[in-house]
Amino acid sequence: MNLKRYLPILQWAPEYSRSQASNDLIAALIVTVMLIPQSLAYALLAGLPAQVGLYASILPLVVYALFGTSRTLSVGPVAVVSLMTAAALAPLAEAGSAEYIAGAVLIAVMSGLMLTVMGVMKLGFLANFLSHPVISGFISASGIVIAASQLKHLFGIQASGHNLLDIVGSLLGSLGSTNIPTLLVGVGALLFLFWSRRFLKPLLNKLGMAPGTAAIFTKTAPILAVVVTAILAWGLSLDESGVRLVGEVPSGLPSFSMPSLDPSLWSQLAVSALLISVVGFVESVSVGQTLAAKRRQRIDPDQELIGLGTANLSAGFSGGMPVTGGFSRSVVNFDAGAETPAAGAYAAIGIALATVFLTPAIAWLPQATLAATIIVAVVTLIDLPALFRIFRYSRTDFGAMLATIVLTLVHSVEAGIIAGVALSIGLFLYRTSRPHCAVVGRVPGTEHFRNILRHDVELCPKVTFLRVDESLYFANARFLEETVMDLVAQEPKLTDLVLVCTAINLIDASALESLEAMSERLNDAGVRLHLSEVKGPVMDRLKGTELLEHMGGRVYLSSYDAWKALTGRDGC
Amino acid sequence: MNLKRYLPILQWAPEYSRSQASNDLIAALIVTVMLIPQSLAYALLAGLPAQVGLYASILPLVVYALFGTSRTLSVGPVAVVSLMTAAALAPLAEAGSAEYIAGAVLIAVMSGLMLTVMGVMKLGFLANFLSHPVISGFISASGIVIAASQLKHLFGIQASGHNLLDIVGSLLGSLGSTNIPTLLVGVGALLFLFWSRRFLKPLLNKLGMAPGTAAIFTKTAPILAVVVTAILAWGLSLDESGVRLVGEVPSGLPSFSMPSLDPSLWSQLAVSALLISVVGFVESVSVGQTLAAKRRQRIDPDQELIGLGTANLSAGFSGGMPVTGGFSRSVVNFDAGAETPAAGAYAAIGIALATVFLTPAIAWLPQATLAATIIVAVVTLIDLPALFRIFRYSRTDFGAMLATIVLTLVHSVEAGIIAGVALSIGLFLYRTSRPHCAVVGRVPGTEHFRNILRHDVELCPKVTFLRVDESLYFANARFLEETVMDLVAQEPKLTDLVLVCTAINLIDASALESLEAMSERLNDAGVRLHLSEVKGPVMDRLKGTELLEHMGGRVYLSSYDAWKALTGRDGC
Repeated sequence: MNLKRYLPILQWAPEYSRSQASNDLIAALIVTVMLIPQSLAYALLAGLPAQVGLYASILPLVVYALFGTSRTLSVGPVAVVSLMTAAALAPLAEAGSAEYIAGAVLIAVMSGLMLTVMGVMKLGFLANFLSHPVISGFISASGIVIAASQLKHLFGIQASGHNLLDIVGSLLGSLGSTNIPTLLVGVGALLFLFWSRRFLKPLLNKLGMAPGTAAIFTKTAPILAVVVTAILAWGLSLDESGVRLVGEVPSGLPSFSMPSLDPSLWSQLAVSALLISVVGFVESVSVGQTLAAKRRQRIDPDQELIGLGTANLSAGFSGGMPVTGGFSRSVVNFDAGAETPAAGAYAAIGIALATVFLTPAIAWLPQATLAATIIVAVVTLIDLPALFRIFRYSRTDFGAMLATIVLTLVHSVEAGIIAGVALSIGLFLYRTSRPHCAVVGRVPGTEHFRNILRHDVELCPKVTFLRVDESLYFANARFLEETVMDLVAQEPKLTDLVLVCTAINLIDASALESLEAMSERLNDAGVRLHLSEVKGPVMDRLKGTELLEHMGGRVYLSSYDAWKALTGRDGC
Repeated sequence: MNLKRYLPILQWAPEYSRSQASNDLIAALIVTVMLIPQSLAYALLAGLPAQVGLYASILPLVVYALFGTSRTLSVGPVAVVSLMTAAALAPLAEAGSAEYIAGAVLIAVMSGLMLTVMGVMKLGFLANFLSHPVISGFISASGIVIAASQLKHLFGIQASGHNLLDIVGSLLGSLGSTNIPTLLVGVGALLFLFWSRRFLKPLLNKLGMAPGTAAIFTKTAPILAVVVTAILAWGLSLDESGVRLVGEVPSGLPSFSMPSLDPSLWSQLAVSALLISVVGFVESVSVGQTLAAKRRQRIDPDQELIGLGTANLSAGFSGGMPVTGGFSRSVVNFDAGAETPAAGAYAAIGIALATVFLTPAIAWLPQATLAATIIVAVVTLIDLPALFRIFRYSRTDFGAMLATIVLTLVHSVEAGIIAGVALSIGLFLYRTSRPHCAVVGRVPGTEHFRNILRHDVELCPKVTFLRVDESLYFANARFLEETVMDLVAQEPKLTDLVLVCTAINLIDASALESLEAMSERLNDAGVRLHLSEVKGPVMDRLKGTELLEHMGGRVYLSSYDAWKALTGRDGC
């Protein structure tokens, strides 16, 4: 059983059928066709040579098939992780240099180690601390930065920077040296890709292709753009007109690469590797869970950590770059009918064949075409309406989201994600540090108690029921003390205060001390403190504390019991 | 009104009476006698020349009298802050050097700026994030480190280090070169001080002194030790026997000192200054609040930040060291009858006179005596039984406390306090990320619903009431989704699920998305989702969201209303 948990392949491989195999093979073929331009493009985005993207699409897919729990996730280089890799390596070395490539390998290895360790320690829940608005804002902003960073390839100019301000500034400065043939190729590819996204499917339908097949075929449009522009570049010798091509790519399978063991490099890249791991994991798990739910399957987040961790380790040791489960490819894999992770392994064979046989053709590929495929892929990530949706629902969430977007755009992806997480945690803590408190009264004719400001309820001037809408812990212990003492100061006739504990899920040691101090001060003021509706786990702890001995009042099962006991039979 | 808020002196000075003045003068006299050895000792502890301690006990007291809200707080150098200052400066320069003194001045100025800005921005609540167990553990552990750090002065040997391991290791290495005369003076002073703490008060009582006077007189025993050992040192020329004395102290009032404006020094000391500010503020506010409560007065934490901030600024600009409200001195000031902050200003005059007239005598003071006064003062801070108390009540709080203690002892005060705060916040977040959930049933004959595992309640197989004991936010959104889907999977007969929202004080955007996804999956499974007892602020937000439109079920005011509606008139 335990072996099956850590090696999910044992769950499906023994019953692997011929029909599953043929479905997986078809899906793998389509994914391979999609993955070739994507892996080249994301290597370009990360500032790495083209073959690094291919290498990252071979072994990791096989390893994920062994250790991953999603049946349809397509692992490999993805846009956001590639951008983060470029941002992490930029201060270290020049893009494409040997040190730079070694850095990418090291990030993959470190990220693989971190993910695997987190998986073994069952720390998958940590990803929950990235709230939806923060992820959504981060992905949108990253999409904008990525699209902007690719414009230089469309114009055939030099530009640099890892945030929107730098990139745009740098672009504007060198727009004068635009290379017209490059622009024609790039914009042509871009227009074709946008057109095919919108109109290719209806066209194919009209031509008699089945809707499902047409949808999948549409997703492979990038390979068409790639093939056509590569043939153009070769036929017209576009490189002589200044169109930058991918250039010579070493042919053959990747060989074993040893990551750097330089401790200073490890410490320089540690934070980036951690962020890349977490962001990649969250993206991958979201996709995996969405797809699994559609087929009533489940994925195990902790085992997913191990799956992605080992995939990254294998990427690093085979000269690749950081990988994770990509959104668009996984959807295509799912729609194309992939039934088991074997589809991923078959796609790996496809990519391996490409590295052996297709590299002479890949050399003729214009970089502008790859840039166009990246831009088309990332604009679907940008979801600005989400900003308005979140704004309407919650200012707090909106604040965290906006901070993430703004910092990602004007500073860096790392600053954006860190600020988003820190701010959403900080705002949550701030909120719990000054909880909503309501004086409640009895809804007439019932045993139910509600806020006197919102409902028409019965009251008793001698007995106040105070409901505190938060667990009591160190951050709000003093706040409660002040709230209660203010309340008592305003009600000179008060003889009994009932703390309605429906929303109190925890009383920590600091809050206990505060309650004890409060109960003493209430005693001095001639007011008895009672508790009602204390939950089981809270009551278990309170037993045996001084609070219950000294507080003067009682603990009532329900607020209505307290009401009956304290206000007399006829109400108040 | 506003001026009175920012200048609390305007609240009491206009009505300052003759009797208040005489009470303040008496208290000031006693505090001065206590403050002279303390300020010298804490300067020694911080690795600073003796006069720095005196300087920090003049202007800051006057400034606090203008801006502070506590009537009895005695501001000046204190043990923990002095230790933290020494730890912060140790990596920068040699103790006692000009750079080292400049560093202490800069910490005081930075800490003053930080506190003042926090006060103006009303950030006093931030101090609440230091939980009681963490503070208690930190103070105890600091007390141990401080006491250990003073042993070298008792033995007259060289030793260094800012954590217990280093100090003890260093002490053991040089114990061989113990100076016997120093040890005699130090241990003599130590024994006298411990004896006087225990037995001087009963003795004075027996000799006919009033109990109150005897208690205060006992607290000034250190000055007796100081005077006697200084006379001994002078009469016996103890310096020639190797007893280290305070040595020549420049006579006269402090002059204006300009803090360093070196940006690299500012950034090196920023974290330390922040920690010193926060720890000093928390210590000071705890003492101030305890004493104010005894006389039914109040202090305003935000204005206290300004009071302590300006006091530290004045300490820095007059060549002093970081200051805060000290525990033992404030209690003595309170017990001696101080009625207004004027008592502090009078004490400042006392110290000023000492810097003018007493410096020749102070020069003869053995350092061992000062070390003895520090040791006796800090052992009262050590509260190890608190560890057991907290352990019994809460493992979580105990964990944070233990981490604080261990890291303070074996690494550094800064690591201790940071780990304590981070761990207590982390454990709180962890707890809220996997909330307690209870299936509840109706307590027979009432409208009250409780946990089926703890109470004998009525149930209905078709309708499950699930109470989630936590606000729903990003960290637990997915957890709830899983809990609910597991529950539904176990109950095939289920037609209605009522989410009892008594403990849900917030539903953030992430949790809303999870609830929407959950409601959709429940619909697919043929289960209607209902909500009951949704609080006003939560309901305000939910109105207009898709959740309420699509969830299939209704929102009930009380769980009993839901019970009546869903289970039929005759129960289930």
